[in-house]
Amino acid sequence: MKKLTDAVLLVGKSADCPDVEYVSGFRAVDQVVFLQAGWKQYLVVPELELGRARRETESSAFRDHYPDEKWEVEVFSPKTLGLGKQHRARLSEWAFKLLQKADVTKGVTVLPQFPYGIAHRLENMRIKITAAKEELFPERAVKTADEIAKIRQSQQAAVIAMRTAIAAIADSEIDRDGFLRADGKPQTSERIRRVIEKVLIEHDCFCRDIIVAGGVQGADPHEMGEGPLRAHEAIVMDIFPQHLKHGYWGDLSRTVVRGRAGSNLRRMYSAVRAAQTAALGSIRAGVKSATVHQRAVAEFKRRKFRTGAENGRPFGFIHSTGHGVGLAIHEAPSVGLAEGRLKSGNVITVEPGLYYPDIGGIRIEDTVVVTPQGWRYLVPCEKRLEV
Amino acid sequence: MKKLTDAVLLVGKSADCPDVEYVSGFRAVDQVVFLQAGWKQYLVVPELELGRARRETESSAFRDHYPDEKWEVEVFSPKTLGLGKQHRARLSEWAFKLLQKADVTKGVTVLPQFPYGIAHRLENMRIKITAAKEELFPERAVKTADEIAKIRQSQQAAVIAMRTAIAAIADSEIDRDGFLRADGKPQTSERIRRVIEKVLIEHDCFCRDIIVAGGVQGADPHEMGEGPLRAHEAIVMDIFPQHLKHGYWGDLSRTVVRGRAGSNLRRMYSAVRAAQTAALGSIRAGVKSATVHQRAVAEFKRRKFRTGAENGRPFGFIHSTGHGVGLAIHEAPSVGLAEGRLKSGNVITVEPGLYYPDIGGIRIEDTVVVTPQGWRYLVPCEKRLEV
Repeated sequence: MKKLTDAVLLVGKSADCPDVEYVSGFRAVDQVVFLQAGWKQYLVVPELELGRARRETESSAFRDHYPDEKWEVEVFSPKTLGLGKQHRARLSEWAFKLLQKADVTKGVTVLPQFPYGIAHRLENMRIKITAAKEELFPERAVKTADEIAKIRQSQQAAVIAMRTAIAAIADSEIDRDGFLRADGKPQTSERIRRVIEKVLIEHDCFCRDIIVAGGVQGADPHEMGEGPLRAHEAIVMDIFPQHLKHGYWGDLSRTVVRGRAGSNLRRMYSAVRAAQTAALGSIRAGVKSATVHQRAVAEFKRRKFRTGAENGRPFGFIHSTGHGVGLAIHEAPSVGLAEGRLKSGNVITVEPGLYYPDIGGIRIEDTVVVTPQGWRYLVPCEKRLEV
Repeated sequence: MKKLTDAVLLVGKSADCPDVEYVSGFRAVDQVVFLQAGWKQYLVVPELELGRARRETESSAFRDHYPDEKWEVEVFSPKTLGLGKQHRARLSEWAFKLLQKADVTKGVTVLPQFPYGIAHRLENMRIKITAAKEELFPERAVKTADEIAKIRQSQQAAVIAMRTAIAAIADSEIDRDGFLRADGKPQTSERIRRVIEKVLIEHDCFCRDIIVAGGVQGADPHEMGEGPLRAHEAIVMDIFPQHLKHGYWGDLSRTVVRGRAGSNLRRMYSAVRAAQTAALGSIRAGVKSATVHQRAVAEFKRRKFRTGAENGRPFGFIHSTGHGVGLAIHEAPSVGLAEGRLKSGNVITVEPGLYYPDIGGIRIEDTVVVTPQGWRYLVPCEKRLEV
C-alpha cells in the first residue's frame, strides 16, 4: 500500500485472497467485501458470519504494524448495510453500497485478480478502478510475533511428519530386486504420502500434493511421485502444510536414500548442503535477496555442477533459492534474481536443489526467520542422506 | 455458453476456476490460460506442465457432450507460444498472445470473476471483454458417466467416514454428567473430526471444515462444532470430501443422538426424514427444482414446524433443499426457490434440516443422480437417530 489514504477494495475469501484475512483479521470461508480508507476498515460478511466477524476483526496482523493509530473497524452484513432483499446475494451490490457508506466516491485500488464483473459494475457507477502494480500490503512480508508462532505450528507439523516418513523409509526392507517393502507390501510414494498426511492431520494441518518422488521422478521438482520406491536412489520429500484453523503455512524438504547412495548422489547431496549453508550464511536484514540466491549458485559452480537444458529438459539448479511463507505458501519476498532486500521478520524458505534427468533430484529446504544479525530456524530438522 | 461460436477466455487454476478443468480436461495446479473458439480449444500451461497437459487434454467432460464434433485442442507453454523471456511470467501476455495466435481479435466472453488486471490489459489492446451473465458451460450440471463415477468415489469415502464416526459416537461411554467419553478421555467434536479425516485420507479424499456440531451448536448450519459432546443431544455431521486426484466432491450429512433422544428431537428427526422422503419423491427429469424444495417446505408446515427469526437469529428450515455437486461443492442446479428444471444426469444434494437455537439442529443429506423417471442414490447410507 503506497499511502494509507488510498482507498483499497478487496473481494474474496481467505483461500484465494489472503490479503482479506491479513488486513481485517477475519478468516473468510465464503466471499466477503473489504474496504480500507485511511485508518478505517469496513468488512461485509454473510449474515450468519456477523458474530464471528466482529470477534475476529478485533485484531489483525496488518494493524499490528500500526499499534499507535486509532483504527476503526466496522462490520456489516448485506442486511445491516441496508441492502434490499433483491440485492443481498450480489457481491457487486455489497461493494457499491459499502463505497457509498464509507463516502468513497472517486476511486479505489484493487488487486490485479479483482473480479472483472464487480469492477465493471463499479466503473459503470463512475468509480475509478486502479489495479495495483505492486503488493497492496508490503507489511505482509514482515511477520509479527503472532504470525511467526502460527507459521511455527505448521512447520512443527511438517518436521514431525518428515521424521515419521523418514523412519518409515529407514524401516523398509530391501528385496532382492532392490525395491523397498514394509509389512509384506511394496513401499510406495503413495503409502509414504499417507503416513505424512496422517501426522499432519494429528496436528490440525493439511498438505495437498505432498511430494514423495523416488529415483528419476525426483529430477522434476514439480513431480509428486508415484509407485514403488527403490533402495539406493534419492527420494525427495517436500511437505508444505497449511494449518486448518489459522491458515498459515510451513515448508520443509528433505532427500534421503534407503541403503547406500552412489558417488554421484553423495556428491550432489554434499553440494546442496553446502549451497544451503552458503545461502543461509549470507542471510541477515538488509542483504539483497539476490545475494542469497547467488551464494547458492556460486557454490554449485565451484563444484562444477552444470545448469542448463537438453532436449527441452532443464537440469542442474533450476529454480530460485526460496520464497516467503505466510498466509500463502508462496509470497513475498522471493529469494531469486529479483530486486529487493531482506527485512527482519521475513519468513523465507532456503531450498537449493540439483536435478539431473538420468539420476534424480536432491533438495534440502528449511524455513527460517530473518533477524537483524542473521537468521534462525523456525523448527530445526536433521539432514542426513542415507537411512 | 450461448453459442459455441462465442470465444470464451478463462484464466485460473482448478481450485478457483473449475471450468478450466471441465472444458479442457487439464487439472490445473497453477494458473493457466484457456481459450475456446468454435470447436477449437487452446490451453497455455507452465513449461514444466506441457507433457501432462497434452495427456490430460485428450478428453474432457465438456467435450464428451459433443462426441460427434471434430474438436481440435492445442496446448502451449509461454515459450512455445512464442513469448519472449521478459513476458513469460505474465498471464496477461499469455492471454494476449493466445488471442493473436487463435485470431480472436474482436472480443471474448469471460466469467464475472475473471481477473480485472488481465481484462484491463486486453481492453487496452482493443479487445472487447464481456462478463457472462449466466454459466458459461451449462453442460456442467449434466454429468457424464465418467463424472458420476468420480463423484461416487468421493461419496463412498464420505459414507465410510460417516459410518466410522457414528460407530465412534455409539461406542462412547456416557459419564455421570452426561458427557461422552472414549479411551478414558472426553469425546469431542475435534476427535470425531479427526476420525473422519483419517478415513477420508485412506480413500484419497480430503474435507476442510467437516461439521461435527453437538447440542445447540448444531442450530447454526455453518457452525463446525467444538468441544465435548454430550449424550441425549443431537450431533449434526456434514462431510463433503473432495477427491485429491480428480477433484470431484461428495456431500453427506447425518444427525445422531448417543443415548435417548427427547420427544422434541424425535419429532424433528421424523419431520426431516419425511421432508427428505417427500422431496426425493418429487425428483425426476423435467420437474421444477422449486417443486422439490416446496415439497420439503410443505412437509414441515404440515407438521407445524415454524420457520422465521427471533432476535436476529433464524430458526426452522432456513436453507434451500439442495445444490449440484461436481468439480465444485456448490454448483448448478440449485434446489431452492430459483427457476429451472431438473435434468437427467444432474447430481444434487437433498438436505432438508430444522434448526432451533434452544434445541439444536437436525439435517439429513444425501447426494443423488436425477434420472428420466426418478433418481438414485450415489451411495446409500443408513439413517438412524439414536445410537
